[in-house]
Amino acid sequence: MPAVTYELIKKSKESRARLGVLHTPHGDVATPVFMPVGTQATVKAMSPRELEEIGSRIILSNTYHLYLRPGHELIKQAGGLHKFMAWDGPILTDSGGFQVFSLGDLRKITEEGVEFRSHIDGSKHLFTPERVMEIEMALGPDIAMAFDECVEYPTTYEYAKRSMERTSRWAERCLKAHNKEEQALFGIVQGSMFKDLREQSARDLIPMDFPGYAIGGLSVGEEKPLMYEVLDYTVPLLPENKPRYLMGVGSPDCLIEGVILGIDMFDCVLPTRIARNGTVFTKSGKLVIRNAKYKHDFTPLDPSCDCYTCRTFSRAYIRHLFNVDEILGLRLTTTHNLYYLLHLMKLVQLAIKEDTLFELREEFYRNYLSDGL
Amino acid sequence: MPAVTYELIKKSKESRARLGVLHTPHGDVATPVFMPVGTQATVKAMSPRELEEIGSRIILSNTYHLYLRPGHELIKQAGGLHKFMAWDGPILTDSGGFQVFSLGDLRKITEEGVEFRSHIDGSKHLFTPERVMEIEMALGPDIAMAFDECVEYPTTYEYAKRSMERTSRWAERCLKAHNKEEQALFGIVQGSMFKDLREQSARDLIPMDFPGYAIGGLSVGEEKPLMYEVLDYTVPLLPENKPRYLMGVGSPDCLIEGVILGIDMFDCVLPTRIARNGTVFTKSGKLVIRNAKYKHDFTPLDPSCDCYTCRTFSRAYIRHLFNVDEILGLRLTTTHNLYYLLHLMKLVQLAIKEDTLFELREEFYRNYLSDGL
Repeated sequence: MPAVTYELIKKSKESRARLGVLHTPHGDVATPVFMPVGTQATVKAMSPRELEEIGSRIILSNTYHLYLRPGHELIKQAGGLHKFMAWDGPILTDSGGFQVFSLGDLRKITEEGVEFRSHIDGSKHLFTPERVMEIEMALGPDIAMAFDECVEYPTTYEYAKRSMERTSRWAERCLKAHNKEEQALFGIVQGSMFKDLREQSARDLIPMDFPGYAIGGLSVGEEKPLMYEVLDYTVPLLPENKPRYLMGVGSPDCLIEGVILGIDMFDCVLPTRIARNGTVFTKSGKLVIRNAKYKHDFTPLDPSCDCYTCRTFSRAYIRHLFNVDEILGLRLTTTHNLYYLLHLMKLVQLAIKEDTLFELREEFYRNYLSDGL
Repeated sequence: MPAVTYELIKKSKESRARLGVLHTPHGDVATPVFMPVGTQATVKAMSPRELEEIGSRIILSNTYHLYLRPGHELIKQAGGLHKFMAWDGPILTDSGGFQVFSLGDLRKITEEGVEFRSHIDGSKHLFTPERVMEIEMALGPDIAMAFDECVEYPTTYEYAKRSMERTSRWAERCLKAHNKEEQALFGIVQGSMFKDLREQSARDLIPMDFPGYAIGGLSVGEEKPLMYEVLDYTVPLLPENKPRYLMGVGSPDCLIEGVILGIDMFDCVLPTRIARNGTVFTKSGKLVIRNAKYKHDFTPLDPSCDCYTCRTFSRAYIRHLFNVDEILGLRLTTTHNLYYLLHLMKLVQLAIKEDTLFELREEFYRNYLSDGL
């Protein structure tokens, strides 16, 4: 039995949405789930106990960043990532693929792997499927992602095909190199925005019997309708008894649409990144707290929200904190944004249970002004 | 009866140290006490509930900064500083004196007050005793400090005398302008390092019957033995039935010495400021977490400490956080440093109760290496 299994609890009557439980060595996770991102072994500005308090169950960390600093050997020596960062819940690590391909001129792709220069000191490194498995096994998350290539958008059909086929070969090599029983290795379906390539990718990967599948190469600059289209034909290619993870997606509307299209897991830096710039999600849409109109506004960020920030502080106060560059400001907005998404996913779960997900979606769009408050 | 009263619980048999309780509109404070500084209506990197958790009872905020941003009128409109920053415990505000005098060329002192330019936008402002009282009454702390001049060190006898005498006249004007029953106004004894000036200052201020007295103009660059000497002859000039507050002092050794010399209240940005640079207090002295020797050190910052940071994280992890500029790093060191001082003050209180303060001091110096780990 793999380290991580997916239990399907209920299929929606309205859509492909489904309620499930991810069983991991560090506990169970109700799905659909949003995973906060802790790039450098910390979800920016948050403490582990705050993450727990707002309802985070599984978090993500980045292999590329941890490999460079502090190094996977150090983390292994610390007893693994859970112990190092004092997070006792499940952890998923990406494979570093997305990061090294984003390095542009600093990297070179061959069949063997990717040679790249560190964005920090320019030092030379080689990521191969085998090497990445070694790193992820040392880090010790519950779920390790296979080393793949995330192609940029737009790209040619030819390149997308070549890259997808290499990703399939790399997936085989990852599988072969990975031997850590208490860790699950997930495969990643690629193929850019081409239906037949997505089909081919799924055909390649499904026989490899990964305990979970991610859809990579989306949310890379394409319009949302195109992403939904790709999801619409890709998700049905994946086995029903395994979790489906849409990588790099984290805006509230995309979470709802993704769930409807059959996705179980999401991650994204968006909520924490925009929070640090003073933008928060509210029931009525995005709110930019530095805006002068909040100077004398003594109401909470989102009056309908129950998070610590909204229970305790006013827009005027948080605006002041941003104005004078105080750390508490971005702590409070980060807390709120993550809570907002985690809470939204709870509502989504409930709506699947009660077959009212379309109702929830309708209400969401009625309130949520996409251009913000 | 003044808004804030001091209850003397016990006088040490060994020294001038004393155990007391400060009764304030926002609750009681056991003294001697260290007050964390929240310059801009937030103790940097801390949330109010974390402050409470580590045992903070009274905190300080800065009139000069709050007057400039967000403005005292806004804070008044918010319902006062307590409500604005969501701190339900006692608050003390300084008078801005120290800050405006530190502006150097940007300020001009006259009998009327101090004209200065904002360090933010160069705009012109005038602080008079009356104006500062108006601001502090609008801010609404439990304790407001009188507007004084904190002279630099070293200074001439003549200047120190002239300045101290003006501070006495300003104290009168503050008293006259202050009319907020639920707020106590504390006087500030000045006189630089000159014994007869300190005596004259005390003679001027005691008849004004402030409910508390601060000793200002210390910890401004003089050597510690000189500060202790000034305290030694100044404290006995102050009434026994009122609290004595040594402004701007917050290193562990100075807290212990100050208590022994009869001080009840302290404040300082030192513990939070050095924390943000990665320096922490430990039982064995200061520790600089960026130091390479902690790279593989999986023990807590201070193994004898019970704070959240030390109960949860290793030196190696905190060093990593500083290395990669993660906010959690300075949150953890700030929490620890404040806890360290607040805990030290609890031990000091216990030692006064049991007449073992000299023993505590001896043990402290035996362990605490002044040049750090």
